[in-house]
Amino acid sequence: MLRKVNLKEKLGTLDAPWVPKVVAEPNDQYVKVAKFEGEYVWHHHADEDELFLVVEGEIEIQLRDGVVRLGPGELVVVPRGVEHRPVAVRSAQVVLFEPKSVRNTGNVDHAYTIEADELERI
Amino acid sequence: MLRKVNLKEKLGTLDAPWVPKVVAEPNDQYVKVAKFEGEYVWHHHADEDELFLVVEGEIEIQLRDGVVRLGPGELVVVPRGVEHRPVAVRSAQVVLFEPKSVRNTGNVDHAYTIEADELERI
Repeated sequence: MLRKVNLKEKLGTLDAPWVPKVVAEPNDQYVKVAKFEGEYVWHHHADEDELFLVVEGEIEIQLRDGVVRLGPGELVVVPRGVEHRPVAVRSAQVVLFEPKSVRNTGNVDHAYTIEADELERI
Repeated sequence: MLRKVNLKEKLGTLDAPWVPKVVAEPNDQYVKVAKFEGEYVWHHHADEDELFLVVEGEIEIQLRDGVVRLGPGELVVVPRGVEHRPVAVRSAQVVLFEPKSVRNTGNVDHAYTIEADELERI
């Protein structure tokens, strides 16, 4: 039987912020869940677009030329190559849709970096 | 500036059921929104996995060997080649995440069929 995923249930199991975990794998893409708290690191993904969907809380996707603010039920796609910094305006629960190849901190090495092949599945 | 998408706002613009409309296009995938009412048609997609995420209402993904029931915030991935029939238990608002190549009724020609290159963007 196919596995149903309850996003809030999965998000509720997360402890540390900025540690995405995989909940589904359609078409060589990952669906990930993550907690956002405080500020992330400026970075870009050279080869992948990245979709952010907020489930709870509020985030900003800061860009070099502006900012997009997202609340529950809102999403944005950051195109490949576009430098961005996710920031939690309020502690947030977020779903990411992106290719399996995405490295969370993109072109930047950082304490938050988790290699794509080291992501936990929950 | 990047375009923010409010899923409920987009879903609120839909009239006819079973007519998916495109709201984002990351990585050669489409994010689509659709209203589900009543029963759809049995079909499969030979080459694509299909992700269903319920925003409001309740749906069943009927399979030849069982059924998966989804409410708000729940998703399932139907793997390529697996025959399925979506059914609205209660009128539902749904997000689909799948490759651009997906034909909504898959291998079946039906009144509901919309070719992949004829999808409306909203």
